[in-house]
Amino acid sequence: MNKIVTFGEVLLRLSPPDHLRFTQATSFNLNYGGAEFNTCISLSLLGMPVSFVTRIPQNDLSNCLVQELNKYGVNSSNIIYGGKRLGVYYLESGAVLRGSKVIYDREHSSMAEIKPGIIDWHKVLKEAGWFHFTGITPAISQAAADETLMAVETAAALKIPVSIDLNYRAKLWQYGKSPSEIMPGLLNNCTIVLGDLNTVETYFGIEAEGNNETEKYLSAMMQLKNKFPNLQTIIFSYRGSINASHNTIGAYLYDGKDIIKSAEYDMSNMVDRLGGGDALMAGFIYGLNNYSSKADALNFAVAASALKSSIHGDTNYVSKEEVIEIMRGNTFGRISR
Amino acid sequence: MNKIVTFGEVLLRLSPPDHLRFTQATSFNLNYGGAEFNTCISLSLLGMPVSFVTRIPQNDLSNCLVQELNKYGVNSSNIIYGGKRLGVYYLESGAVLRGSKVIYDREHSSMAEIKPGIIDWHKVLKEAGWFHFTGITPAISQAAADETLMAVETAAALKIPVSIDLNYRAKLWQYGKSPSEIMPGLLNNCTIVLGDLNTVETYFGIEAEGNNETEKYLSAMMQLKNKFPNLQTIIFSYRGSINASHNTIGAYLYDGKDIIKSAEYDMSNMVDRLGGGDALMAGFIYGLNNYSSKADALNFAVAASALKSSIHGDTNYVSKEEVIEIMRGNTFGRISR
Amino acid sequence: MNKIVTFGEVLLRLSPPDHLRFTQATSFNLNYGGAEFNTCISLSLLGMPVSFVTRIPQNDLSNCLVQELNKYGVNSSNIIYGGKRLGVYYLESGAVLRGSKVIYDREHSSMAEIKPGIIDWHKVLKEAGWFHFTGITPAISQAAADETLMAVETAAALKIPVSIDLNYRAKLWQYGKSPSEIMPGLLNNCTIVLGDLNTVETYFGIEAEGNNETEKYLSAMMQLKNKFPNLQTIIFSYRGSINASHNTIGAYLYDGKDIIKSAEYDMSNMVDRLGGGDALMAGFIYGLNNYSSKADALNFAVAASALKSSIHGDTNYVSKEEVIEIMRGNTFGRISR
Amino acid sequence: MNKIVTFGEVLLRLSPPDHLRFTQATSFNLNYGGAEFNTCISLSLLGMPVSFVTRIPQNDLSNCLVQELNKYGVNSSNIIYGGKRLGVYYLESGAVLRGSKVIYDREHSSMAEIKPGIIDWHKVLKEAGWFHFTGITPAISQAAADETLMAVETAAALKIPVSIDLNYRAKLWQYGKSPSEIMPGLLNNCTIVLGDLNTVETYFGIEAEGNNETEKYLSAMMQLKNKFPNLQTIIFSYRGSINASHNTIGAYLYDGKDIIKSAEYDMSNMVDRLGGGDALMAGFIYGLNNYSSKADALNFAVAASALKSSIHGDTNYVSKEEVIEIMRGNTFGRISR
Amino acid sequence: MNKIVTFGEVLLRLSPPDHLRFTQATSFNLNYGGAEFNTCISLSLLGMPVSFVTRIPQNDLSNCLVQELNKYGVNSSNIIYGGKRLGVYYLESGAVLRGSKVIYDREHSSMAEIKPGIIDWHKVLKEAGWFHFTGITPAISQAAADETLMAVETAAALKIPVSIDLNYRAKLWQYGKSPSEIMPGLLNNCTIVLGDLNTVETYFGIEAEGNNETEKYLSAMMQLKNKFPNLQTIIFSYRGSINASHNTIGAYLYDGKDIIKSAEYDMSNMVDRLGGGDALMAGFIYGLNNYSSKADALNFAVAASALKSSIHGDTNYVSKEEVIEIMRGNTFGRISR
Amino acid sequence: MNKIVTFGEVLLRLSPPDHLRFTQATSFNLNYGGAEFNTCISLSLLGMPVSFVTRIPQNDLSNCLVQELNKYGVNSSNIIYGGKRLGVYYLESGAVLRGSKVIYDREHSSMAEIKPGIIDWHKVLKEAGWFHFTGITPAISQAAADETLMAVETAAALKIPVSIDLNYRAKLWQYGKSPSEIMPGLLNNCTIVLGDLNTVETYFGIEAEGNNETEKYLSAMMQLKNKFPNLQTIIFSYRGSINASHNTIGAYLYDGKDIIKSAEYDMSNMVDRLGGGDALMAGFIYGLNNYSSKADALNFAVAASALKSSIHGDTNYVSKEEVIEIMRGNTFGRISR
Repeated sequence: MNKIVTFGEVLLRLSPPDHLRFTQATSFNLNYGGAEFNTCISLSLLGMPVSFVTRIPQNDLSNCLVQELNKYGVNSSNIIYGGKRLGVYYLESGAVLRGSKVIYDREHSSMAEIKPGIIDWHKVLKEAGWFHFTGITPAISQAAADETLMAVETAAALKIPVSIDLNYRAKLWQYGKSPSEIMPGLLNNCTIVLGDLNTVETYFGIEAEGNNETEKYLSAMMQLKNKFPNLQTIIFSYRGSINASHNTIGAYLYDGKDIIKSAEYDMSNMVDRLGGGDALMAGFIYGLNNYSSKADALNFAVAASALKSSIHGDTNYVSKEEVIEIMRGNTFGRISR
Repeated sequence: MNKIVTFGEVLLRLSPPDHLRFTQATSFNLNYGGAEFNTCISLSLLGMPVSFVTRIPQNDLSNCLVQELNKYGVNSSNIIYGGKRLGVYYLESGAVLRGSKVIYDREHSSMAEIKPGIIDWHKVLKEAGWFHFTGITPAISQAAADETLMAVETAAALKIPVSIDLNYRAKLWQYGKSPSEIMPGLLNNCTIVLGDLNTVETYFGIEAEGNNETEKYLSAMMQLKNKFPNLQTIIFSYRGSINASHNTIGAYLYDGKDIIKSAEYDMSNMVDRLGGGDALMAGFIYGLNNYSSKADALNFAVAASALKSSIHGDTNYVSKEEVIEIMRGNTFGRISR
Repeated sequence: MNKIVTFGEVLLRLSPPDHLRFTQATSFNLNYGGAEFNTCISLSLLGMPVSFVTRIPQNDLSNCLVQELNKYGVNSSNIIYGGKRLGVYYLESGAVLRGSKVIYDREHSSMAEIKPGIIDWHKVLKEAGWFHFTGITPAISQAAADETLMAVETAAALKIPVSIDLNYRAKLWQYGKSPSEIMPGLLNNCTIVLGDLNTVETYFGIEAEGNNETEKYLSAMMQLKNKFPNLQTIIFSYRGSINASHNTIGAYLYDGKDIIKSAEYDMSNMVDRLGGGDALMAGFIYGLNNYSSKADALNFAVAASALKSSIHGDTNYVSKEEVIEIMRGNTFGRISR
Repeated sequence: MNKIVTFGEVLLRLSPPDHLRFTQATSFNLNYGGAEFNTCISLSLLGMPVSFVTRIPQNDLSNCLVQELNKYGVNSSNIIYGGKRLGVYYLESGAVLRGSKVIYDREHSSMAEIKPGIIDWHKVLKEAGWFHFTGITPAISQAAADETLMAVETAAALKIPVSIDLNYRAKLWQYGKSPSEIMPGLLNNCTIVLGDLNTVETYFGIEAEGNNETEKYLSAMMQLKNKFPNLQTIIFSYRGSINASHNTIGAYLYDGKDIIKSAEYDMSNMVDRLGGGDALMAGFIYGLNNYSSKADALNFAVAASALKSSIHGDTNYVSKEEVIEIMRGNTFGRISR
Repeated sequence: MNKIVTFGEVLLRLSPPDHLRFTQATSFNLNYGGAEFNTCISLSLLGMPVSFVTRIPQNDLSNCLVQELNKYGVNSSNIIYGGKRLGVYYLESGAVLRGSKVIYDREHSSMAEIKPGIIDWHKVLKEAGWFHFTGITPAISQAAADETLMAVETAAALKIPVSIDLNYRAKLWQYGKSPSEIMPGLLNNCTIVLGDLNTVETYFGIEAEGNNETEKYLSAMMQLKNKFPNLQTIIFSYRGSINASHNTIGAYLYDGKDIIKSAEYDMSNMVDRLGGGDALMAGFIYGLNNYSSKADALNFAVAASALKSSIHGDTNYVSKEEVIEIMRGNTFGRISR
Repeated sequence: MNKIVTFGEVLLRLSPPDHLRFTQATSFNLNYGGAEFNTCISLSLLGMPVSFVTRIPQNDLSNCLVQELNKYGVNSSNIIYGGKRLGVYYLESGAVLRGSKVIYDREHSSMAEIKPGIIDWHKVLKEAGWFHFTGITPAISQAAADETLMAVETAAALKIPVSIDLNYRAKLWQYGKSPSEIMPGLLNNCTIVLGDLNTVETYFGIEAEGNNETEKYLSAMMQLKNKFPNLQTIIFSYRGSINASHNTIGAYLYDGKDIIKSAEYDMSNMVDRLGGGDALMAGFIYGLNNYSSKADALNFAVAASALKSSIHGDTNYVSKEEVIEIMRGNTFGRISR
């Protein structure tokens, strides 16, 4: 398969160890995180060829980030150097009924201050087989939104499948535009979308209607399909929060005809809550490219996402064999020896 | 509001990390703990002015303890220096169905060997708005019991509200007096009490009677009120232990007329079991001073206590906004980003 | 009582901390593990005199291992030095629905390359009161199997009770023999066995039949007794896996007449899944030697095993008093202070 | 004495532990650092009353920083809240002949984007006894330079002694002004200065002349005095670098009449190279206020700075008794027991 | 050889990691320390049979301490249980020119409150080949001094060699007696002594005289021999402190005829300064029992002590082969591979 | 430039942290090490294109090792999978005058049991520009020696420069051949060699003669050149050990005409002693390919090696700019900020 190209920002993730609160911390664990970055590494570990595009400053921390991509086999040759800083997010991991807290410090990052036009998308994408991005990138700055649009339009022109994870972040969108002004232009060029009920209401004013969960999901997904007829496959995920360490996860898929519901997983004693959506997206891209059945693709995606809850950091370090074990119902966590 | 003054002992808490047993430990995590100390810091973080009174030796570890109080905004100017040592408690954190173990090494502490009369309670309390102590302080030594009585009587004479957390510790009371000889004299001067069914039986021989939980709690609380008519508000908490990592918590309140039951919280995957009662006490003092409704005060207290289970150490590092979120039912531990 | 002698291999256990995956690890926690080693230390901590026999190379790591035995009071004077290496196993601890992974690196160990005849079993066992081994030792190599048979036959000749934990490991048995060729010869000399339904099917082709769990267990245990009439007591344990952190445990006992079912324990928030069977075996040997009732012995064994899930590493660092507390139903994990 | 007021920026200091390079780091140690912040805490620990003025955003990390000030007894009531971020610096600690590396990420900090006029300097300083700042603050941004000038002029008008540590940072001064345009206006209002030969050449074009070290230092200090006649006491420090872990330190003082040379200290096996100048400055302010002899003040300052090299982080956690021990020649590092 | 019996107290040693000051610590490293304990473990690792006698309370921490003795092959069967606590010492490790600080919290320990007569010294010593103690034990309390005297007199009566490390601790001797009242009675029964110039002045008023180091040492040692004619071998060690991480070590021996000077070692980049004297004592006891030449015994002792500086904790975990390598001049720290 | 191909074995390096002895360790730091592996990563970080060839088993640890190569930009496409294990070496880091200890556990590794002929060297090397190996590879096993010879002969046939680091390891060479039987055949095909006086004596019986160091080095290098006339450049390094933490390093070069001596570096407070020779080799290959002067190449090599002593692990994570700074004499370890 040709390379899957993803475009987005990477942040340093700095988090107190062992569920300590900020006030107790004397050190931070270091990880890298970013929706497209996470998806990209996950795809590579599942065996797919991938390339990650972003803009980063020229310093030793950026080198570390590129080394992280290299480590997991992600092509980093299209990364642009420039600007002054990597964004940072400080994460305080919640526990019991205390939620996690995120402090963003990502303004003025190299990615936020990208110079539109600096990336030659035609060159980047001409041998690509897929383009993926999320709703976070256009939320960073006008420049990032512009660059995303260029990428998406180039991909569409090249007839490459384009996937988006809608991924709404309320604390972004600070540059004077609302999602409803920006997202439709992007969605018009997409063929695959991962969303959820709240986000489509926020972005597009879509209200789910129906007498039960399935009807509501179908209603919202049909409205989305009507708005963006180029969409071929729509998946909506949901996550149930029992408490900070105990969630459930599942998803629905709509292909313009049928609605399919995935297996649902119960995740108690979660190690890290973050990155579940990115893992699901990676799993779904993998699934669409490796299964003939969309239901299989969906179930692969949800199983991959469930596994993510067992792994520290933002990224889903799992192999396809491990995901398939979960799909087969081997969710008991037995020892393999 | 005028300062809340609390009086009690602080211990070094030394515990093997990561649920290791003592026999496996090569290091100890260091925290400070003490029922009144914990309550005091928690009140300060909730926004209340507080002053902590104790007796500590003159050494670098005592300085660290005072710095801890300073860090969280607690006034330490009434602390008395003298004696030879800080008490210590070694804590082995339990897990699954193995309970936590505590080894006390607190005899001969500066607080236990306090010289009665060394504290000028009239001066300490004359501008105070509240006095708080627990049943641990009079259990340490005759001198500590005497000093506590002086404090309580001074506070009562100054018409300052006096609260007590009954807090029975079976391993204390080694100096020749039983709680039933000491506690009544103290309770006579109190207006607010936090207790539980077992403790009032131990201290005062009160036996709860009734056909259901509510009747039993009401019975015990009414008996307590009858014994100590100065008491205006009585709360009894209960904690259900499913295992070492999974508890429930709730409380009842009796104000001389009605009995109120709080919300009850389920706490699975607890980070640290200790300090829940102290957090509840702090929450209740905060609540009584900031809510017009006693039910609100009670629910604030229990929500604060539930949050404590997510925090390492003895102390409840939470803000009032975080407690209020729990009271509002946001107990799902979602990420705030 | 005379010494309990156990014979088996010890491996270095190297595991990434905090549930990290191998790819994330920059350090390994170090423990020692081996079924008979674990059982041996556990028995010593329960107060029984024990001696551990194995073969290890002459180097500083072996010294550490012997020091570990010494630390817990196990006699190490019958250990044979020789060969070139300690085996290693790398353990990646699972979480949520991700299972633990074990990478064995134990070929060519000093134990695997034992020279049959190097141990004077008559001398080792002549003052012993019990001999214990597991199905792992004969699975390592022909030499280890031969040595085990010598030990067992010597013990039988000396009329010492011989216990075996069947402990099937699929990744072993690489030396050209199958369990069904080796195990019967060993079992003929045993009086006590710990097994489970799967293992007796694998080893001896025994298929459990019956309309309910009890009937099935009874069927399998009766067949086993028929095959090996010397067996006086048979226990079969079972472990339910809800997920990697949440298991249940219980066991059945058959003494040739009656079948007894143990109490069953629910173990959520497990600290370490490994070593549960070894803890059960140690508990049962303790129980048979200290209780007049076999049901008590069985319940002691299962309670000990349940406690193991709260302890890091392979070994069950618990006292008999702690086990008895669990047997009495005190499984709530309350603080002892 | 009246409060010593200092004004400057605080950064999060994030550094890989144990001399690891960035590429090896999986966590960062967390400290807070800033020239005036370090000086301020050091003064407080030496027993002086201090107040720290800065601008920080409203978030949990800022709270931690204020708690750090509180912990060490520094008044934080004049801190202004606003802006969006705390600056950060990433520190890779050198070793042997590899130098330490600093990556600054401090642009757009709350302090850099201070709104001139937001601080009521008359109010802040009216009861102060001293004002201190460094050459770093005016190097951050035009706004910070303007605010500093207001502070300095207010202090001068109130006849409060003003001290400056010249502290040149080549990577700052990015806002379009050079030190030679800004620093003279500030120096005109100062009475005490800490500098070194390179910095006065960079700032003021002063070239040291003479046949030996003393003559050169005297030459430069006299030129500085001539340029800024308000200066009453000038100290120049020097640091010899044998390698990353082995330095020497000493200083010269010129009071308009005589030049004095301090004791010189040899610092091998340094724990942390940073913050030596800030410790020296704090020591000198302490010394001027507590010794009648300027030589004593100078020697106190250099001894304090030498001690700093033994302490992790940017801040000099030492008592005056400890500094005095060093001054007395007790530099052998013997155990006090 | 028959067992070497040592008698003394063991303390928990709690020290902040990585040279942190107390104010920076969030955890303590845990070691056990005590002059006789350290000597005892060191002797065992050198291959000598040893037994350690002390009094400790009955709790889990005491069990850990006994396990530590067991681990290193020290006989612990003569340990007496009773009393209430283990003493503690908090150690802040110095660096560069900052000295280490020790906070003792050892009053009221089980050893300090030993009941004289509780140990049957005749039974303990009747098969012993050596008795060793230090000047710390009689400094703890009158009871400990009394017990020590009983031990020493019993040993002398049994004609067992008795060695003492004079080991003066100024912070002890709080019970109303001075060393000059107690030590002579003990020394009268000793045959081997380790001391230094300062200590013999403090204990016995001996002043060293002479024109050079050798003459001074000879003078002091001859005076000591004159005072206590039973002494057969006297060694005096000295330690040069260049700074907290760089020391030198050497020793003199006097056997009533000649004075011998040992090799001297330079110890830079020391890992842990403590326990050097105890290591030297152990080395000397080993040497006297294994070398025909007293010079060899002395050099073995000093080499052992030099090695100790490379090891964390109080105890010298080295083999005799390693000491001999140092004696042979292999002090270059090359890799053995 | 075309790729530099290196061939050798990689071991897991497991070492107790913080200079702990094995007996004190509860965890091991994990690094990867191997002479050619270290050289390879170092070359890649210096900016050279490199490919690493080895044989490893198919498991998760091998994946980690390949990810490490990927991280640092080393081509891993020629790695062969097969065999059963990665070799391990346990490293106890020395300190002060205690040397480091290495326990090898590398027998039966995938590399030792390589099947000669499995690597198509013609294919691997046909586009290579350089081949590098060390004396460790032929010391592992007959198979590894055979495979090395094939590689070297193929490279020579393709007229690719071949470099060797002689690297004698006394604990290897266990398979029945001595270096003098194997090394000459390999050296015949080499053009560049890194050695030292001891190794050429061991391998080839070369004895250095002369009145001073330079003469001795020249003598030995001339003899080596005479034995192996294909050698174009010979460097001999030397390392002075003052103690385990303080070394010096330097080297001589002989090109058939002149002898050149490098700068010499003093390395006190070393972080990690290992890998210095591999760093030197990488620096020299870099130098020969990037400098016209052999003296510059030599000095680059020695400067790179000196830097290595500041870095944890076996590998030299430095850039060419950092090496050049050292070459320029900037060895003071100043902070770059």
